[in-house]
Amino acid sequence: MYTAQITIMPLAELLDPQGKAVNEALHNLSLQSIKDVRIGKHINLSIEAPNKEVAFEIADIACKKILYNAVMESYTIKIIE
Amino acid sequence: MYTAQITIMPLAELLDPQGKAVNEALHNLSLQSIKDVRIGKHINLSIEAPNKEVAFEIADIACKKILYNAVMESYTIKIIE
Repeated sequence: MYTAQITIMPLAELLDPQGKAVNEALHNLSLQSIKDVRIGKHINLSIEAPNKEVAFEIADIACKKILYNAVMESYTIKIIE
Repeated sequence: MYTAQITIMPLAELLDPQGKAVNEALHNLSLQSIKDVRIGKHINLSIEAPNKEVAFEIADIACKKILYNAVMESYTIKIIE
């Protein structure tokens, strides 16, 4: 059984209103040294596969089919045994 | 400038209804080899700090003050230069 750790983040070129709101909230809490906040998703998939490569393939298909929005987001996959 | 990569996940003991819904959707798309899905948040903070330790401290305070819910979630912080 493999675990695919998928991180989905808003594209760097796009505004991240959620991140901006959190950034302002942190400044109001005297954490001015935090200059930027970007908020995305982290998804762990437990995958039954014969090897790491197949597990990566399955996670990649899952991302493309349902998990990420190509217009607004990018994703990275890390497979762990 | 440091980047704090924060991963916030629902506690293992708790149900994750969002993850369960995605798991069922993946099964309907013929991805039966995916056995479990857990969905959390990934937050990148850009932090101005004199060193890695201070950057970690600031990220930790931000988590405790505002970013994570101790009742339902756990978090990990990774500092990158």
